[in-house]
Amino acid sequence: MTAARPVIPASRFSERMAAARSMAADAGLSAILVGVGADMRYLAGYAAMPLERLTMLVIPAGGDASLVVPRLEAAPATLAPPAAAGLLPVVTWDEGDDAHALVARLVRSAKTATGPRLRVAVSDDLPARHLLPLEERLDRPALSLASLLLREIRMLKDPDEIALLTLAAQAADRVVDQIAAGRLVGRTEADVSREVRERLLAEGHDEALFAIVGSGPNSASPHHEASDRVIQPGEPIVLDIGGTFGGYGSDTTRTLWVTGGDPANGPDGRFRHLFAVLRDAQAAATRAVRPGIACEAVDAAARRPIQAEGFGDAFFHRTGHGIGLEGHEDPYIIGGNHEPLRAGM
Amino acid sequence: MTAARPVIPASRFSERMAAARSMAADAGLSAILVGVGADMRYLAGYAAMPLERLTMLVIPAGGDASLVVPRLEAAPATLAPPAAAGLLPVVTWDEGDDAHALVARLVRSAKTATGPRLRVAVSDDLPARHLLPLEERLDRPALSLASLLLREIRMLKDPDEIALLTLAAQAADRVVDQIAAGRLVGRTEADVSREVRERLLAEGHDEALFAIVGSGPNSASPHHEASDRVIQPGEPIVLDIGGTFGGYGSDTTRTLWVTGGDPANGPDGRFRHLFAVLRDAQAAATRAVRPGIACEAVDAAARRPIQAEGFGDAFFHRTGHGIGLEGHEDPYIIGGNHEPLRAGM
Repeated sequence: MTAARPVIPASRFSERMAAARSMAADAGLSAILVGVGADMRYLAGYAAMPLERLTMLVIPAGGDASLVVPRLEAAPATLAPPAAAGLLPVVTWDEGDDAHALVARLVRSAKTATGPRLRVAVSDDLPARHLLPLEERLDRPALSLASLLLREIRMLKDPDEIALLTLAAQAADRVVDQIAAGRLVGRTEADVSREVRERLLAEGHDEALFAIVGSGPNSASPHHEASDRVIQPGEPIVLDIGGTFGGYGSDTTRTLWVTGGDPANGPDGRFRHLFAVLRDAQAAATRAVRPGIACEAVDAAARRPIQAEGFGDAFFHRTGHGIGLEGHEDPYIIGGNHEPLRAGM
Repeated sequence: MTAARPVIPASRFSERMAAARSMAADAGLSAILVGVGADMRYLAGYAAMPLERLTMLVIPAGGDASLVVPRLEAAPATLAPPAAAGLLPVVTWDEGDDAHALVARLVRSAKTATGPRLRVAVSDDLPARHLLPLEERLDRPALSLASLLLREIRMLKDPDEIALLTLAAQAADRVVDQIAAGRLVGRTEADVSREVRERLLAEGHDEALFAIVGSGPNSASPHHEASDRVIQPGEPIVLDIGGTFGGYGSDTTRTLWVTGGDPANGPDGRFRHLFAVLRDAQAAATRAVRPGIACEAVDAAARRPIQAEGFGDAFFHRTGHGIGLEGHEDPYIIGGNHEPLRAGM
């Protein structure tokens, strides 16, 4: 560990919930309903287990938020920072209760005058198993995705979040260095992948979520996982690894070349050329980043050097994505995204 | 590894998809739309990464199934057994394409005469980020949960699935034995939890998904995780651990008593009494299990010995759940569930 790991205080979660409520009111919504996932971690600091029972943060535009949980989860829920600080009431339901009807009652009891039909935003992760019953209990409300509002606060990271993301990235960088310094020749991708996961945990990650190891021809599949292919000298290897660190994501991709200790196995001229083109693209995108530039302009900057060398068709994925409580989140660096970058993104 | 790990063949997935299509037709549905998750693993053998881009198995009632994936994931998708065997076409979409509109076109092009409004079932896991855009592209279809149909085939495990579940359970049992044989006194719950996760992997699990360690007072919270509390001699400890093994779940809960090697620290009379009541309840439920008995009758059988001793209020969770590609799945052993048990559940 290179630095102390910040802890987000209870008051910060209250501020975030107040901001969400205020945005909901401004948008003419009755409520925001947040299921288990990153939005719940962001707003309530509660990393609920992703089970089938309904756990839901209910934020009415005209009333106080509450955290609805199965009674089975009452103990961990009340340990969430705002709940423990008395800033967020925990409402439990029992096995056999209609939990969706309970949420509908909470929405209605705090209803402001928004017309006969409720207008409700739901978190993007909310699964159909909860969304369809909620639609019924709320008499077919007008539904929208909560991310349309919540992205506005989640995209802008505060200093604690930036510190956690920095620690996460540094930990993943150390793992890449350790793998590059170790033996690769003769091992399977799966074996190296297992080592990556162990090292991510050893370097302080809460969870190792992905450890892509693509060797030789597999290095050309962006989301290859890790196979039983044995790594050879004289070929490239792509590591795309990450997880969460204090809840915040790491996501580091590096291309190595396997020599097996013999410089004669080094990359050939074609590979060196491809690598140089990619470095140029990365440098161009990095230079383009500044407050006010549109996401798509950063994407275009990265694309230009690659297209100029005739490899445009091979660059069939977006240039990048935001990272925070989710590995991929707004803002997305992709053609068509006019969103201007802001400080803190 | 105590036995060979079965591999589900490509033909099995085809049979499952054909069964799903047939049930969809019988139910008057236009299509079943299956997002990333257990239903997709069950039907198509594809364990897609749970990313934000749309990956969807489209099963029209009146046409052939196809697997819609981001081009970025084309390589892993075509390795899914039915795709690799030429039994399931993979349809890719490019960054910036409207993937939800692509799915809507596939549904409409295979549409049978089901009236002006489409009737579509969606997998229970499908997140709102995909469900809301699909609702719009399909002109507000009548939506239902796919589990209402798919549960009928997923609940009944075939011999390969039973073999995998057995191997998973045996691996988790070995981990409990190893933890019980090791030192516990003076260690934190979190430290023991980390050891559980490592041992689950060492015993052949693909992933260690939960490793609840509740010591002393924490043993009373059913879904406690693992804290920095230091384990003491003379107190109970609850392990509730599991993960996936060849894709299939383990979920093993055991109550231990920590003596630290000194029999004088053994459980007192009250704890022994509570433990005996629980064993009676478990035995009563196990005796009740047979084809034809309702799930709620098994729940009632487990509850009776506990209520008779005056602890009914403390047994506030259901008695049990199915297990398979998900840790919790149908059938649920809970009051109100009239479903009769069948062989293979």
